[in-house]
Amino acid sequence: MSENITLSLAEVRKLSESVLTSNGFNEAHAQAITDIIYTNQLGDCHSHGLYRLFMCIESIRSGRASGTAEPTITDAGPAVVRADANDAISLLAMKAAMPMLIEKAKKNGVAALAINRCFHFSALWPEVEMLSAAGLAGMAMLPSHAWVAPAGGTRGLLGTNPFAFSWPRQGKAPFTFDFATSQFARGEIELYRRAGKPLPEGVAIDKDGQPTTDAEAAMDGAMLTFGGHKGSALSLMIELMAGPLIDDLTSKESMEAAGGKPEAPYHGEIILAFDPYLLSGGRVAENNDRAERLFADVIDQGARLPSQRRQAAQAFNTERDAVEIPKALYDDLVALKA
Amino acid sequence: MSENITLSLAEVRKLSESVLTSNGFNEAHAQAITDIIYTNQLGDCHSHGLYRLFMCIESIRSGRASGTAEPTITDAGPAVVRADANDAISLLAMKAAMPMLIEKAKKNGVAALAINRCFHFSALWPEVEMLSAAGLAGMAMLPSHAWVAPAGGTRGLLGTNPFAFSWPRQGKAPFTFDFATSQFARGEIELYRRAGKPLPEGVAIDKDGQPTTDAEAAMDGAMLTFGGHKGSALSLMIELMAGPLIDDLTSKESMEAAGGKPEAPYHGEIILAFDPYLLSGGRVAENNDRAERLFADVIDQGARLPSQRRQAAQAFNTERDAVEIPKALYDDLVALKA
Repeated sequence: MSENITLSLAEVRKLSESVLTSNGFNEAHAQAITDIIYTNQLGDCHSHGLYRLFMCIESIRSGRASGTAEPTITDAGPAVVRADANDAISLLAMKAAMPMLIEKAKKNGVAALAINRCFHFSALWPEVEMLSAAGLAGMAMLPSHAWVAPAGGTRGLLGTNPFAFSWPRQGKAPFTFDFATSQFARGEIELYRRAGKPLPEGVAIDKDGQPTTDAEAAMDGAMLTFGGHKGSALSLMIELMAGPLIDDLTSKESMEAAGGKPEAPYHGEIILAFDPYLLSGGRVAENNDRAERLFADVIDQGARLPSQRRQAAQAFNTERDAVEIPKALYDDLVALKA
Repeated sequence: MSENITLSLAEVRKLSESVLTSNGFNEAHAQAITDIIYTNQLGDCHSHGLYRLFMCIESIRSGRASGTAEPTITDAGPAVVRADANDAISLLAMKAAMPMLIEKAKKNGVAALAINRCFHFSALWPEVEMLSAAGLAGMAMLPSHAWVAPAGGTRGLLGTNPFAFSWPRQGKAPFTFDFATSQFARGEIELYRRAGKPLPEGVAIDKDGQPTTDAEAAMDGAMLTFGGHKGSALSLMIELMAGPLIDDLTSKESMEAAGGKPEAPYHGEIILAFDPYLLSGGRVAENNDRAERLFADVIDQGARLPSQRRQAAQAFNTERDAVEIPKALYDDLVALKA
């Protein structure tokens, strides 16, 4: 029933930039945000593509996110970059700090980027793939809002806390994954709720802390982490690494600060970069081969590498210079420009 | 039915050291190994306490592990330490390199230790707790043997690949976790096999790649990762981070090198250290409070922090200056000295 329209890749960029600039984002912010929205749309990651422009616009219309603040980039230690977004969307701060992170990682072997005081709406894989494109391994994590209960708990405390990793491959798309540490994404629960479908077991608890498959009750209760107590431990680590470690908010603090507004969550993010040259004692080629044998063995037994489908979509859409999006989404985005 | 005996803490150390030195480990190795075995036994972590001496002794008796090799510690970059164990058990190399790792992390903000060419039998939590005891956050990971299939796969490729993290707390035992990325530990499958009990669903596949609850079939097939494709992705990351990134073996290469011998697996390990001072822009006290509010909220809702039980055992056993172990284990260990 849903009608699609086809946009050229230049049209995707132009649509995103014009929606952003007509709503108060300056050129620099509009381009940094568009880079990431474009990259997601190219990979048919619809949930984090053009669709996310609504969250960007809500963030600026609520008066809380700045569309013009310059990020403050600080050389905060030999292997540490701090990027203060100064209450803007994270992506201009990330883009501005990335060259220093890469330089520090190549010089020192390991380096960290702390992005602070930012509104965050984006997937992490394009960020870690900026590192693998520079020949580094990359890791990124961040909190969100306190929708997820710790293992054995009864109420929301943790965020959906994504964790992403990318590994550079010679002449091939990188090995990359980017997953939420909650069993489901928040939006998935919402889709079940709208469809009136029961949730699978083990995804959520109700407001009394009891297991539930009722999506409505889950929205009033809390989600659960993936992988039981192990996923819960990992999610707590992400709270610490991307919160107190870098002087920024936990998911609970972020949720309290937001006061229920539909804007993007406000908190920090940590990105780690690892230099294979220094860490392997200069033996990069042999170790690339070793990694490739590992990947070949995954594929040979009929399993898939984590981002294969998305990377195939990127290649396909680049080749045909087009993506498809729902006509209704396109119309709503054009209306946002008014 | 099983009879226990009580050992004083000094007796635990002495038993471990004498078993090791009477089997060809020199004083330095015997002490480094005993430090970790003792710490595990103190926390009632029986599987990684005195029981692990058998694996140490098997490693040296097979003629492959050295009991006397001096580790080679290299300052391999401003934020990188490399510790070549030179075919010994990992723990002397780890102990010798730890001061340089801590110094580099405090100077640079982040640092990495690559331990290479080591036999490895130990839990990771005592290592990351050496970092949190120094006021740093710590992360550690390593491969093992290719007993675990990637998500969607049909045969062993990944190790049980543990991941550990520790966070320093003022005046309190640190927040620490240490888990295998396989659904079960290898030894657990073995216990089910011996007991003739069926495994839970989702833990293993048989040699044809089909789901099985038969422990015998699982031993001939492969184990599965925790948390489906997310755990599998994490396990692949661990292969890369503690293998090709640091010029060392994957779990498959390690297993091939071992040729089925009962000694400890031979491979590398990576340990990462993070300095809260540099990463938080010097705001450590406020952020300690923020982390404590997070932990308090976990406990307040009836959940447990990951290492609470083990840390309580450590405190209890320290206070009473004693641990209990099975009499049969004690007798077997004494016999090892012959």
